[in-house]
Amino acid sequence: MQNIIDYVNNNNNRYLEELKSFLAIPSISTDPERKSDMGKCADYLVEHLIRIGMQNVKVFPTEGHPIVYADWLHAAGSPTILIYGHYDVQPVEPLELWTSEPFIPTVRDDKIFARGATDDKGQVMIHLKSLEAFLKVRSELPLNVKMIIEGEEEIGSTHLEKFIKEHKELLSSDLVVISDTAMFAKGVPSVCYGLRGLSYMQIDLVGPNHDLHSGSYGGSIHNPIQALAEIIAGLHDRNGKVTIKGFYDDVRKVTAEERRAFRKLPWSDKKYAKSLGVKDLYGEKGYTTLERLWIRPTLECNGIWGGFTGDGAKTVIPSKASAKISMRLVPDQHPEKIASLFEKHIKSIVPKTVKVSVKNLHGGEPAITPIDSPGVRAAVEALRKGFGKKPLYQREGGSIPIVVQFKKLLGIDTVLLGFGLPDENAHAPDEFLTLENFFGGIRTVVHFYNELPIFMKE
Amino acid sequence: MQNIIDYVNNNNNRYLEELKSFLAIPSISTDPERKSDMGKCADYLVEHLIRIGMQNVKVFPTEGHPIVYADWLHAAGSPTILIYGHYDVQPVEPLELWTSEPFIPTVRDDKIFARGATDDKGQVMIHLKSLEAFLKVRSELPLNVKMIIEGEEEIGSTHLEKFIKEHKELLSSDLVVISDTAMFAKGVPSVCYGLRGLSYMQIDLVGPNHDLHSGSYGGSIHNPIQALAEIIAGLHDRNGKVTIKGFYDDVRKVTAEERRAFRKLPWSDKKYAKSLGVKDLYGEKGYTTLERLWIRPTLECNGIWGGFTGDGAKTVIPSKASAKISMRLVPDQHPEKIASLFEKHIKSIVPKTVKVSVKNLHGGEPAITPIDSPGVRAAVEALRKGFGKKPLYQREGGSIPIVVQFKKLLGIDTVLLGFGLPDENAHAPDEFLTLENFFGGIRTVVHFYNELPIFMKE
Repeated sequence: MQNIIDYVNNNNNRYLEELKSFLAIPSISTDPERKSDMGKCADYLVEHLIRIGMQNVKVFPTEGHPIVYADWLHAAGSPTILIYGHYDVQPVEPLELWTSEPFIPTVRDDKIFARGATDDKGQVMIHLKSLEAFLKVRSELPLNVKMIIEGEEEIGSTHLEKFIKEHKELLSSDLVVISDTAMFAKGVPSVCYGLRGLSYMQIDLVGPNHDLHSGSYGGSIHNPIQALAEIIAGLHDRNGKVTIKGFYDDVRKVTAEERRAFRKLPWSDKKYAKSLGVKDLYGEKGYTTLERLWIRPTLECNGIWGGFTGDGAKTVIPSKASAKISMRLVPDQHPEKIASLFEKHIKSIVPKTVKVSVKNLHGGEPAITPIDSPGVRAAVEALRKGFGKKPLYQREGGSIPIVVQFKKLLGIDTVLLGFGLPDENAHAPDEFLTLENFFGGIRTVVHFYNELPIFMKE
Repeated sequence: MQNIIDYVNNNNNRYLEELKSFLAIPSISTDPERKSDMGKCADYLVEHLIRIGMQNVKVFPTEGHPIVYADWLHAAGSPTILIYGHYDVQPVEPLELWTSEPFIPTVRDDKIFARGATDDKGQVMIHLKSLEAFLKVRSELPLNVKMIIEGEEEIGSTHLEKFIKEHKELLSSDLVVISDTAMFAKGVPSVCYGLRGLSYMQIDLVGPNHDLHSGSYGGSIHNPIQALAEIIAGLHDRNGKVTIKGFYDDVRKVTAEERRAFRKLPWSDKKYAKSLGVKDLYGEKGYTTLERLWIRPTLECNGIWGGFTGDGAKTVIPSKASAKISMRLVPDQHPEKIASLFEKHIKSIVPKTVKVSVKNLHGGEPAITPIDSPGVRAAVEALRKGFGKKPLYQREGGSIPIVVQFKKLLGIDTVLLGFGLPDENAHAPDEFLTLENFFGGIRTVVHFYNELPIFMKE
């Protein structure tokens, strides 16, 4: 492997320049005025993939922005990975908060600043440069690679599901590899092996059949805002546990080993609270903060509205009040079952004084790639070699819908090999990527390509 | 008094025609395009007041719409009343829901339909025609009368307070008489002797210092919507009592006689609930619905907002959540004291996990004119004679800010001698006034003018 690593090290400067040219294309997927830039960015990838030696390079048009595909499939007997990334970026407003122009990539303090630096162009480039290193030095890869880079991740991957469904054979593989997340902290390489799922509901309460004057009617009927507050207040008990009957029934027991692994991560509740501007944290008793975020299901109000919300004082008892409430799920909870438990629970506690309707707005399965699976073990070994340090295990509290889609539509687990950092301003002004992680990422991915076939054979 | 009553009866048709001409003027105070109609309406009143024999008729311009003043002050040794009314009306939209044009007054089924029929032009006309009857038949009134008719009641009486403050001497009197409310029900003449006050607050909670992703952060901090729901849910106990410490301390005990009087009013909880479309009523245990509306202080949420309130599913933990909460007050509660108890209570229960700010948006004193006061006794006697039926006592759950202003600025109690009915569509399409109450109102007011000096001498 040393010749591959040498190639990477000898080409650092060129790699950085190429990253700059990729970042310079303003590929904002949500902006209709950037449509031609989106096409330019897809063309840039096509040219780049061909140049580094990838094959079957294709642009698949969609009703939105195109998906770029490439593969290299000559490692007979070796596993096949599907690398997923995206070339579209978030809008840049407010522009005045950027230190340098978002599409004039600028290096300061060993960081490269530009929109898309960490999310996700920088991480896509990590894979392109790793593939290049193998193909230029050895003229072959140690495993079969398929790659798709989409242009609509920042706008909900609108046309990706249809594309996957229509190209199941083309995309079939043994493992999905995604580099679009963050490591736990700077200098703390980590592998993320679990994501929470989601069940997103809406409650609508109706009290009186029209808005009432709170003077003439106040005291005679149950105000739907009050009834809604009573319902929401009752969804957690004194210990921060969700009170929905059966909510925890399917939660898979987490091993003592996993919980021990989390405790190795550098963490301070105090610093975390301070960074969020709160005096005290809150959550389910009996679990650390990271456990509450990663391995425990939770329930949050995402929105609430009812009555008069303008300036001043309008004396109304509203007819209606509503709330959006979502639950984060962990293995082996299922969004449909949780949605139905939620609806049943709400209907069982709603008072006779109001009418309720419960809507299921959205759901997503939790995802986990076991820490003893070949993919995760190869990632651990690659990170150790790439960063010269044993990586730690982590999970992520959010969902990555594409991970769930790959599992559901293609039956493939995902390894999340993210090289961003939590403070790199993804979606915000002054987005950057730490260059140490850009180059460490390339070294890691090179090792990952090499190690995976070994772990998969064991 | 028979000759006065005969005059009224003999002039019914003309009175009705004059009411029609008053109602035909589209005096919508909120509509800038009706500014000249507002002037026309004030001129109409001036001409009318002069014609019936009132004196010192004046138009006081304000920065908004003018106030019309008139008096007759030759009843030496008799008390002076200040009659208040308003000539402005609500907008008429949605026009398509009117059976006849809002400004083409039309009689159907012994009701006169027009915008302003019950609120308040019809009731102003009741006083004009009562004054006329005395002045035409006897060339004098049995008491001294001052009258102000404003043009901004429907837009918050914006310039009235300044006018009162600048004309304290001109307006000084023994009793204010307002006919701008409703009787309890058709065929149930009643006198309203109490109004609730108001303390209107806003609570703003701040949790994390910015909106968070509910996946990445859900389970670690106290969601401000949840904290707000917990606060609101705790503001009533299981018996529907407000839990704010000291909230009920200043509530004046209501006599058994008053509570008995309320029970004489025709009332059905079932019908009331049905009319509002609710299965069950709600409120403080130990009190009837009317008692809860009239003699008990209450607390209502008038508005709540926080987080994502659009269509679909956005996974946010909001930084902020807010609610508008108002309390209806009864004698001898004071809005400033209640506001301060509220603030103290909220600050004492707010958890450490969020920051709270409490704002006092608005307050109004409760008002009561004791049922054994000369004004109320004269009203009872006048209603008995005017409608041939013993009237009942009622209060009103809402506030009438002008009543509080007269008390505060001039030190004068008000008698509410309302001749509308609760179902006459004030502020809605097809507003009407029941003609039986228009003529019964004139007979009542004639008797009231006559009786008041007698009761005040006792």
